[in-house]
Amino acid sequence: MSTIASFKDLLEAFRSMRCKKRIAIVCPTDEHTRDVALQCASEDLAEITLIHTDDDTQWCRQLQEKYPQHVTTILAGSPDDACRKAVAEVRQNKADVIMKGLINTDNLLRAVLDKEHGILRKGNVMTHLTAAEIPGYDHLLLFSDAAVIPYPDLTQMDAMVRYGVNMCRRLGSDTPNVALIHFTEKTSEKFPYTIDYATLKERADNGDYGSVHMAGPMDVKSACDAHSAQVKGIESDVTGHADMLIFPNLTAANTFYKTLTLFGHSSNAAIVCGADAPIVVPSRADSAESKFYSLALACVAATSDRN
Amino acid sequence: MSTIASFKDLLEAFRSMRCKKRIAIVCPTDEHTRDVALQCASEDLAEITLIHTDDDTQWCRQLQEKYPQHVTTILAGSPDDACRKAVAEVRQNKADVIMKGLINTDNLLRAVLDKEHGILRKGNVMTHLTAAEIPGYDHLLLFSDAAVIPYPDLTQMDAMVRYGVNMCRRLGSDTPNVALIHFTEKTSEKFPYTIDYATLKERADNGDYGSVHMAGPMDVKSACDAHSAQVKGIESDVTGHADMLIFPNLTAANTFYKTLTLFGHSSNAAIVCGADAPIVVPSRADSAESKFYSLALACVAATSDRN
Repeated sequence: MSTIASFKDLLEAFRSMRCKKRIAIVCPTDEHTRDVALQCASEDLAEITLIHTDDDTQWCRQLQEKYPQHVTTILAGSPDDACRKAVAEVRQNKADVIMKGLINTDNLLRAVLDKEHGILRKGNVMTHLTAAEIPGYDHLLLFSDAAVIPYPDLTQMDAMVRYGVNMCRRLGSDTPNVALIHFTEKTSEKFPYTIDYATLKERADNGDYGSVHMAGPMDVKSACDAHSAQVKGIESDVTGHADMLIFPNLTAANTFYKTLTLFGHSSNAAIVCGADAPIVVPSRADSAESKFYSLALACVAATSDRN
Repeated sequence: MSTIASFKDLLEAFRSMRCKKRIAIVCPTDEHTRDVALQCASEDLAEITLIHTDDDTQWCRQLQEKYPQHVTTILAGSPDDACRKAVAEVRQNKADVIMKGLINTDNLLRAVLDKEHGILRKGNVMTHLTAAEIPGYDHLLLFSDAAVIPYPDLTQMDAMVRYGVNMCRRLGSDTPNVALIHFTEKTSEKFPYTIDYATLKERADNGDYGSVHMAGPMDVKSACDAHSAQVKGIESDVTGHADMLIFPNLTAANTFYKTLTLFGHSSNAAIVCGADAPIVVPSRADSAESKFYSLALACVAATSDRN
């Protein structure tokens, strides 16, 4: 498999998928979501099921009539009903990916988490994974968790590593470089997550995550810039070449995400991992392009399950 | 007073100070620190006291001989002794600013914090303040705390606001815009710092910080980009035009600092506030330029105390 180092490569991989993914789109009310649906149908990229309320019936029917082989529609009684129906599609193995349109993320995740009818298996962790294409960085940089888990514990960080490493492999990196983020290189009882980092590194050494390089604690600059790491006297396979960053709290990861986008001029894709299907939950401020990248990332993430 | 919107303006202000500041430089062993000392002396920017160990005697003497009106030297028995002597200079009102060279920051701060001989008054808070010049942002952006306080409590955040607002005023902003950073706009018991934010806003409304605009919780992008804030439906005097960001934890602030520098190509200056003199504690990876900006910022911060 060739390496996916940019979103251009990612779209290429999405377009050339041997087996088209099936996407349940919940409430395609906003323009961006409709653009994504239209593009998937018109370019033969995926099979889509539009799960809509009465407000969107006309638009959804028109798309279905135009692309009958690519589009199915399901009428829901309410946005919450639409969420439940999307989750049911995954349970019945009729959808590989869920994407939200103009509904509240919390409402969709509530349906995903529902103990009886949801799609998060007991013991699984639901967490957010971002991929960023940053001018000046020569490959996609993944990180967690900028949106779902406020203060990840060891179990949750373990899951973040697993999902991130799996995604790195799907992007073509055989031995991903994982950096554990902290503001210094010190492991200290004062910062319990650095003790968890030590455990994660033991697990990595034991082969629990397959072939990986894992290092840390270190700061973002040491992880992504070899010269900075060298000046600080820390060197490893990871420093300067991180593929995946694990952040100790959501505010730090969210700050990274927002700063990269605003001042680093990055493009981003993001999915929620851990449920039986990857979930795309774009935020209102995301660009149309970013939403499409996210969908492509979700489809690549879902690949191994069906191909 | 004209506005200081860039580091060029800051250096201009530093150069045109009516009353030269007196700087105690601890262990000027590394090249960058020596360059700063040389520049201060040769350009008549400040009076400097070089507090050195025997290793640096030769270099310090030479500088003193060359610039006898600008340079004083004090021989210390050890790096720790040099730290104590620098603190003593401030106590005896012989120095306005302390700058560290090649010694461990912790050792210097230990001397600053010493209960008997230190310079942090009881009840005062010592915290780190950064100023960033970011391509695409039209004025200096201040933020705390990227290096000293891991999880600031209400008292510490109150101090961060006061020092930040004071610095904004010295940079020429009459009514600084302060943004309280969180990953969403929600105030919630689950995140106690957002409850503290509510208290800070009450204090701002009560005039405790003088004339300021304060808003939040909000994310970094809403604070610094008006369009993003608009899309999210949040609007205030602060959104898009923040002068000062308060972060809820050190990892988030440090991530902001490192991401800005590496991917946003910012230049930075930083000082430690709260003691009887501003303290410059550059890190090894800082550029020579950044160290000089930090010294200029410290001298501007020290201004009101003597001018």
